[in-house]
Amino acid sequence: MDYITRLLKSKSKVMDYILPFDTSVYRSRRAELMRQLSDGQILLMGNKNSPRNYTDNHYKFRQDSSFLYYGGIADPGLIMLLDVSSGKTTLFGKERTIDNVIWSGHQPSLADKAQVSGIDEVRPLEDLDSMLRPGAMMLPNYRHGEWSKLQTILSNKKAQESEALITAVIKMRSLKTAAEITYMDEAVNLSNDLHRHLIKQVRTGLYEYDLYAQAMAFTLAQNCTLGYNAIITVNGHILHNEHYNNQLKQSDLLLFDGGIEITAGYTGDLTRTVPVSGHFSGVQSDIYQIVHQAYKASVAAYSPTATNLELHLAASRAIAEGLIALGWMKGDIAEALAAGAHAVFFPHGIGHMIGLDVHDMENLGEDRVGYSSDQQRSEQLGLKSLRLAKKLEVGNCITIEPGIYVIPELLKKMQQEGRFLDFINYDNVADHHDFGGIRLEDDFVITDSGIRKLGSDLSISVEEVEALLAS
Amino acid sequence: MDYITRLLKSKSKVMDYILPFDTSVYRSRRAELMRQLSDGQILLMGNKNSPRNYTDNHYKFRQDSSFLYYGGIADPGLIMLLDVSSGKTTLFGKERTIDNVIWSGHQPSLADKAQVSGIDEVRPLEDLDSMLRPGAMMLPNYRHGEWSKLQTILSNKKAQESEALITAVIKMRSLKTAAEITYMDEAVNLSNDLHRHLIKQVRTGLYEYDLYAQAMAFTLAQNCTLGYNAIITVNGHILHNEHYNNQLKQSDLLLFDGGIEITAGYTGDLTRTVPVSGHFSGVQSDIYQIVHQAYKASVAAYSPTATNLELHLAASRAIAEGLIALGWMKGDIAEALAAGAHAVFFPHGIGHMIGLDVHDMENLGEDRVGYSSDQQRSEQLGLKSLRLAKKLEVGNCITIEPGIYVIPELLKKMQQEGRFLDFINYDNVADHHDFGGIRLEDDFVITDSGIRKLGSDLSISVEEVEALLAS
Repeated sequence: MDYITRLLKSKSKVMDYILPFDTSVYRSRRAELMRQLSDGQILLMGNKNSPRNYTDNHYKFRQDSSFLYYGGIADPGLIMLLDVSSGKTTLFGKERTIDNVIWSGHQPSLADKAQVSGIDEVRPLEDLDSMLRPGAMMLPNYRHGEWSKLQTILSNKKAQESEALITAVIKMRSLKTAAEITYMDEAVNLSNDLHRHLIKQVRTGLYEYDLYAQAMAFTLAQNCTLGYNAIITVNGHILHNEHYNNQLKQSDLLLFDGGIEITAGYTGDLTRTVPVSGHFSGVQSDIYQIVHQAYKASVAAYSPTATNLELHLAASRAIAEGLIALGWMKGDIAEALAAGAHAVFFPHGIGHMIGLDVHDMENLGEDRVGYSSDQQRSEQLGLKSLRLAKKLEVGNCITIEPGIYVIPELLKKMQQEGRFLDFINYDNVADHHDFGGIRLEDDFVITDSGIRKLGSDLSISVEEVEALLAS
Repeated sequence: MDYITRLLKSKSKVMDYILPFDTSVYRSRRAELMRQLSDGQILLMGNKNSPRNYTDNHYKFRQDSSFLYYGGIADPGLIMLLDVSSGKTTLFGKERTIDNVIWSGHQPSLADKAQVSGIDEVRPLEDLDSMLRPGAMMLPNYRHGEWSKLQTILSNKKAQESEALITAVIKMRSLKTAAEITYMDEAVNLSNDLHRHLIKQVRTGLYEYDLYAQAMAFTLAQNCTLGYNAIITVNGHILHNEHYNNQLKQSDLLLFDGGIEITAGYTGDLTRTVPVSGHFSGVQSDIYQIVHQAYKASVAAYSPTATNLELHLAASRAIAEGLIALGWMKGDIAEALAAGAHAVFFPHGIGHMIGLDVHDMENLGEDRVGYSSDQQRSEQLGLKSLRLAKKLEVGNCITIEPGIYVIPELLKKMQQEGRFLDFINYDNVADHHDFGGIRLEDDFVITDSGIRKLGSDLSISVEEVEALLAS
């Protein structure tokens, strides 16, 4: 075993082993986390490889974001244990063998990994159980099934989800440091480049999968990955459409919701909607400009005391105003908004936190991340899908992403049920059931001096988008 | 609920809902499986979506291959229950709601899905527990953690892994029908095209990730996916290298091991190794020709009575012969082979079954799939990694993939330990520790008239490869 350890430590690496932040950053994050919890142990589970159609044919590895935040090490099969009373962190994992070298090449030793992360000691996984004290705190996990070892620990009640730990992690990860924001700018700028690259290629006759292929090629050629399954669709009204089977027609709108995740783990999340023909038709232009107006109204609604709910409501009002002017909606705007009639066209929230996860920290609980203790999530269409409602703080990174969608099934259902008859001109919309949907999305950071768009600008007005399509 | 069902059934679909085989094929496969098992219930678990960094940010869905084989339905969250005594199959799943339509678009109803697969009835997932009788048979699963419902079933011992079921499934899936072989030909031909596309682009200065980007773009533009994480590396001696960080140098060999999985689920698995300079150097050409000779010797070793172990040994002998002639090995060839000295250069097996999984049915147990009851897997280097050793049957689809690798760590370890001093000229190899590795791999089917290469031909001789690089 000594030979292997020397071997692994002495040789050139398969890939550079550089973490996104300095050792001191991880040390101080862990120290701060321990400071916020009075006593006990904190168990941070890294991810393992996720099997695709059998164990060894796995998906591309992604480390758990909280593990990445507190440890930085993006390798599968690791666990960190933080001892609050001693302040010591232990890294658990398997040491490499000569078979691993043959099949997977050189890898840093566990001790190498611990060192770059400033972790105090390493132990084999087998030692975890004996080092755990009853009551160890864990985060909720979406991949617990991967860890058979963990099933034993959990069934012995040695470690449990801890509300105090979750609260402390959300508090820290919600407030991005300057260094994190630099990474967010980088992720957004690369995502901007991706959008420009793709939009220029939009033309009649292509299939959605042709564009998906180009998006993936662009991203991988940056040695990056997509932060989430890109939406590239002529059916923009299907909000999370992950199929790419349609051919682009002259009359279609193409909605592209995609973002690049850089190797540091931070991702962009941008949406543009463009006319396949190169020019917005009359109604496409009308709706597009309402969505753009909603985007601007939402940004303008920010103030140091603003909640994200207020940003949502500002966008909602702009959408209702625009649709009333267009004749798709009618009646008193305040009543329409209160009733939620606009949400038939805008059935999702204005945005969410973004960072190491595209919906940042969603696995820790949407309400915990997005709602303060005095806020109750609404059950109304639209508002019930608002992921982030609470007051915005300096350091928050968020998306702003209003949209207008014509969802024929939803309109028919509402009309059949006699809903919103005072606020929606169902007959006027009936001619546009093949409209699709338009969404515009950018990423922002809250700073001392206000709300700032992350990254450089990306074409967004009707004129800018048509110019980009023509370029 | 009635409204939603009608809605979902009546409308155009997000994607065409066509299974790879006719309804009758799935019916008869299930009937044959039940015929082979005298009594009881068979529980076939489909896959769910695998979370990436949180539940809703999931990897691209891949159905379990046995579920695909017996049911054909490539959607997440489904379970089939086959009742051997009644011959009836039930499909369990969740019916879609209006929220699903908004977020994910139209989907066929459960009943639609059951119909195209010839399944007798559908039930909500909640009914599974009450319909299960103790002793229900299951396959081993690599994703059980996904199904919290299953944990309850398993802990109540209502269903268990069944050796009889595993044996019956392996027997059926091992013998590909003419229709399956047609799909295998298609997958291999697309994989051939992918290799031609990529090899033509190889040139000094590119990074491995540039080629990975191009491989993915080519594959996605066919509306297909890669059947496994492609190996695209100048470090061919790292057998399962999944990193793409190196820049191609003039003196490098580039090893590309990649295959396209078609929408029917079948995948190709091909490897070529090419000189970045466009021309093999002297030693590159020498080693390449030995590997090519081993490939041909392995194919030639097939006879209607042959075991795959014999194909492995034929390749091993060709490699030892070639390396003795080259001066990297020495001594008596029979003794060298018996001692396993050649395996220092060829430390893996000659191949494996291929089909719906690239290592077909690996999750059912490598030894169950690849070894007969009278064969014991060797513990010797090389042979211990031979996945398939048993007699080859008409209908088997297999890979043949000999390779020669210079793994400095392994050579040093063996030399330090005084191993194979009579058979390996360690000093002669010492000048070539930066050689890398060469592997050549094609896919074959065993037919009534012999062994046939799947798909059309792909450049493989030194001359053909150099011509392809120049084209």
